[in-house]
Amino acid sequence: MLVQAYGAHAGDKPLEPLQIIRRTPATHDVQIDIAFCGICHSDLHQVRAEWAGTQFPCVPGHEIVGRVSAVGAHVVDFKVGDLVGVGCIVDSCKHCEDCATGLENYCDGMVGTYNFPTPDAPGWTLGGYSQNIVVHERYVLRIRHPEEQLAAVAPLLCAGITTYSPLRHWNAGPGKKIGVVGIGGLGHMGIKLAHAMGAHVVAFTTSESKREAAKELGADEVVVSRNAEEMAAHAKSFDFILNTVAAPHDLDAFQVLLKRDGALTLVGAPASPHPSPNVFNLIMKRRTIAGSMIGGIPETQEMLDFCAEHGIVADIELVRVDQINESYERMLKGDVKYRFVIDNATLAG
Amino acid sequence: MLVQAYGAHAGDKPLEPLQIIRRTPATHDVQIDIAFCGICHSDLHQVRAEWAGTQFPCVPGHEIVGRVSAVGAHVVDFKVGDLVGVGCIVDSCKHCEDCATGLENYCDGMVGTYNFPTPDAPGWTLGGYSQNIVVHERYVLRIRHPEEQLAAVAPLLCAGITTYSPLRHWNAGPGKKIGVVGIGGLGHMGIKLAHAMGAHVVAFTTSESKREAAKELGADEVVVSRNAEEMAAHAKSFDFILNTVAAPHDLDAFQVLLKRDGALTLVGAPASPHPSPNVFNLIMKRRTIAGSMIGGIPETQEMLDFCAEHGIVADIELVRVDQINESYERMLKGDVKYRFVIDNATLAG
Repeated sequence: MLVQAYGAHAGDKPLEPLQIIRRTPATHDVQIDIAFCGICHSDLHQVRAEWAGTQFPCVPGHEIVGRVSAVGAHVVDFKVGDLVGVGCIVDSCKHCEDCATGLENYCDGMVGTYNFPTPDAPGWTLGGYSQNIVVHERYVLRIRHPEEQLAAVAPLLCAGITTYSPLRHWNAGPGKKIGVVGIGGLGHMGIKLAHAMGAHVVAFTTSESKREAAKELGADEVVVSRNAEEMAAHAKSFDFILNTVAAPHDLDAFQVLLKRDGALTLVGAPASPHPSPNVFNLIMKRRTIAGSMIGGIPETQEMLDFCAEHGIVADIELVRVDQINESYERMLKGDVKYRFVIDNATLAG
Repeated sequence: MLVQAYGAHAGDKPLEPLQIIRRTPATHDVQIDIAFCGICHSDLHQVRAEWAGTQFPCVPGHEIVGRVSAVGAHVVDFKVGDLVGVGCIVDSCKHCEDCATGLENYCDGMVGTYNFPTPDAPGWTLGGYSQNIVVHERYVLRIRHPEEQLAAVAPLLCAGITTYSPLRHWNAGPGKKIGVVGIGGLGHMGIKLAHAMGAHVVAFTTSESKREAAKELGADEVVVSRNAEEMAAHAKSFDFILNTVAAPHDLDAFQVLLKRDGALTLVGAPASPHPSPNVFNLIMKRRTIAGSMIGGIPETQEMLDFCAEHGIVADIELVRVDQINESYERMLKGDVKYRFVIDNATLAG
């Protein structure tokens, strides 16, 4: 099946309309007509070949929501017309320990939604900047939000689960003091989710101007991290700090804010290294620096259900496909509150 | 009470005999005639003023074993003649959350056995290179090993607990694959303890010559970490790696050997930073880099009892006080298997 998409033919070329082939649904496949797709910073890194190994043409997009338009013969959990989503994962080995425990995101055989090897043409996966997608039922999520929220649900599939998973893993909840560093696509979801989990949430930003916005998102307190005095007032007080900032920065400034046994978890990898963290800060309070990557499929469903129950969606700005290149430029300047989402209906134009 | 000790008057001076004053035991104090005291690498750092804030005269030593020679009026758990030990901690605030949970080692008011502020003369604590010491009963440990092993028990008070505590905290035991990096004072205890806990133990060394020795200590496998092929064979297979090496080195080489959710825990702080660890390695498998410092008092007693039950002591070389300076030089060259212990009876000479 030939479908319209938007992608790039080279790292230094803008994205443009192109046509791609989607497979005919196999027995366990779900075919989804894509209504909306979020724009994640990873899309930009990959399509501009800032990360190694980009295959061209490259069609990014892994925050996908839409309606089921066809199902394979053995699919029982989804039917035509269902509201569904697809995130960063479209396949995995299905039999390793990670897959068996629903942590497909850590499976060595994980297949990402774009730029991962696949038997389908052209040999690598093509993402959600397209009219439809065909995905094994295991990796399809059910959306229980009202349909009018659908565009704002899209970013939950990456930004939502990438922050939800570490917050749950490190036990964010009532009685816990949780920090969220960075108030962007990921951070704004981290604040909303940690707040909904019942934690005391402190947002960290480098920008005084984001103070009020962070409170509106659900932060109980906001700390401007350039202000040493404000930072010092929170020394040794955090159970957990979720760090969404991928740009190289001083991790020690946040380490020293952790209690004994506290964890600073990074969800972004910097292009050049952070300054080497001070080991003494780790040793003195048995602190940890950790990483976390997206989340597993059952956890993603749990997150979507949690968000539906708590009325949580992303704050978005809806754009047409012909605004994608411009949106990338604005994203690089931080000029977005907090996520661009593509209206995939504009692909047909 | 005036007692013989061995210490230094300046960072660039050798250690020499000197006299110090010990307080008269207060109601909760235990006075201990010191039989043996281990030589820890920290002793050298502190007495040579390689760490900030050394007060002179400095009397190091925090691996102390001996017999109770007097007790305060309210002491009920110890009596004159008991075999006891004192480790790195001689006081703490006694009422914070850390103290309440028996993690005095993480108390902000922890008083180390030497070079920490005290109301006693001369104003800072003086350690175990001395004939006796007076310590609040809370920080005195009972030794259940046979008396003939006493000298070899001394290093358990620092090297033993510093490795035991993280091994327990990160759940070393049957079914777990545990790495121990570095086969020195700490590492040789880590191997013995992890083996006795029932884990599958892999020792890492830079030196081919230590292969057999590591196996004798209890390692199931030994990996020469300079050998890339040997390292690669263990990729993504460890539950936990205890890193005892304080010299700056590549942490990524060990990170990539951890399974999902595995931890690399550092118990030594380098004088200059390690190369900044690769964040991608953390994110891809939700791995952690952590620190751990000594252990709490109840845990130290648990470790001593565990060692007595399993017949575990350190491998030591007994030295006279007048050999301390020479022992430091040999320690710097790695010429010790694996811990020097001072025969404190030689102080009387």
